[in-house]
Amino acid sequence: MYYKHHVFFCINRRDSGEVCCAQRGSEAMQAYAKDRIKSLRRSGPGGVRINKAGCLDRCDLGPCMVVYPEAVWYTYVDKQDIDEIIDSHLIHGRVVERLLLP
Amino acid sequence: MYYKHHVFFCINRRDSGEVCCAQRGSEAMQAYAKDRIKSLRRSGPGGVRINKAGCLDRCDLGPCMVVYPEAVWYTYVDKQDIDEIIDSHLIHGRVVERLLLP
Repeated sequence: MYYKHHVFFCINRRDSGEVCCAQRGSEAMQAYAKDRIKSLRRSGPGGVRINKAGCLDRCDLGPCMVVYPEAVWYTYVDKQDIDEIIDSHLIHGRVVERLLLP
Repeated sequence: MYYKHHVFFCINRRDSGEVCCAQRGSEAMQAYAKDRIKSLRRSGPGGVRINKAGCLDRCDLGPCMVVYPEAVWYTYVDKQDIDEIIDSHLIHGRVVERLLLP
């Protein structure tokens, strides 16, 4: 396992006003998560990788991200949600039930 | 498990001539793989998703992709390699040993 947790944020932007993750601030949240993992010194091989991704095709439930290899899907609203996913799941291995996608 | 196999192609482009996956044709190969999975009718929930991703941070071994949840990392050169990964791994569940990243 190259990364313990490999996280993909959808940062797709759709045209013509359709619902998309980028419209809901996903790019800023991905950048925030990446910086936070780095400042916590959890980035890199054996640790956590925070990636941008194209459309994960769950637009209606977005903004969304997925954590592999465990295949846990989350939505989020703000930095507090990102902090909770990082602290609980990515650092301590406890899934954040309230933010799971159905 | 929302997707049986969720594939992320690094399509990152680095500036100033540094080695990167985009330089080695990753965007065209991602598009090719996505089209092929669609034509094989294996796309969608319960099937295969072919995604673009930002830098997977294994640039020196690129172009690279990763298949989750199994966390199998591949490199590839051409469409024949992509076809083999699709037919062997994504359709029949057999890892393509010769294309694995070390």
